[in-house]
Amino acid sequence: MQRVKVLVTLKPSLLDAQGKVVQDGLHALGYDNVESVRIGKVVELNLTDGTVNVQEQVREMCQRFLANTVIENYDIEVLN
Amino acid sequence: MQRVKVLVTLKPSLLDAQGKVVQDGLHALGYDNVESVRIGKVVELNLTDGTVNVQEQVREMCQRFLANTVIENYDIEVLN
Repeated sequence: MQRVKVLVTLKPSLLDAQGKVVQDGLHALGYDNVESVRIGKVVELNLTDGTVNVQEQVREMCQRFLANTVIENYDIEVLN
Repeated sequence: MQRVKVLVTLKPSLLDAQGKVVQDGLHALGYDNVESVRIGKVVELNLTDGTVNVQEQVREMCQRFLANTVIENYDIEVLN
């Protein structure tokens, strides 16, 4: 079995409203040293062993389905 | 500035409904080798430099606010 971890994050130029809310929450709890917060998604995939090129297949999944490439970046990490 | 990445994932024993939906979507697109999918959150924090123990402070943030420790695990990575 192949494990793959995909991180999907909003592009840096875009306002991350969810991150701003979390930042305000942390300030309210007294963590004044928090300068910025950005929230993203982790997608952990387990793939059956096979003949496909995993990195290339997951890149295609991200392009077609897992990420909105207009506003999001993705980072693929093949774990084993 | 200190950068910290926190991964918050649902505990393995719990059903991940969002992950199941993504898995079904990937199967519908023809990726039949996808065995399981789990979705989590990434929280990227930028902290101002200071005297606090970053690892310990972020662990406290997770316990109090960033994660629901009844159903979620978290993993803290101090990047620099």
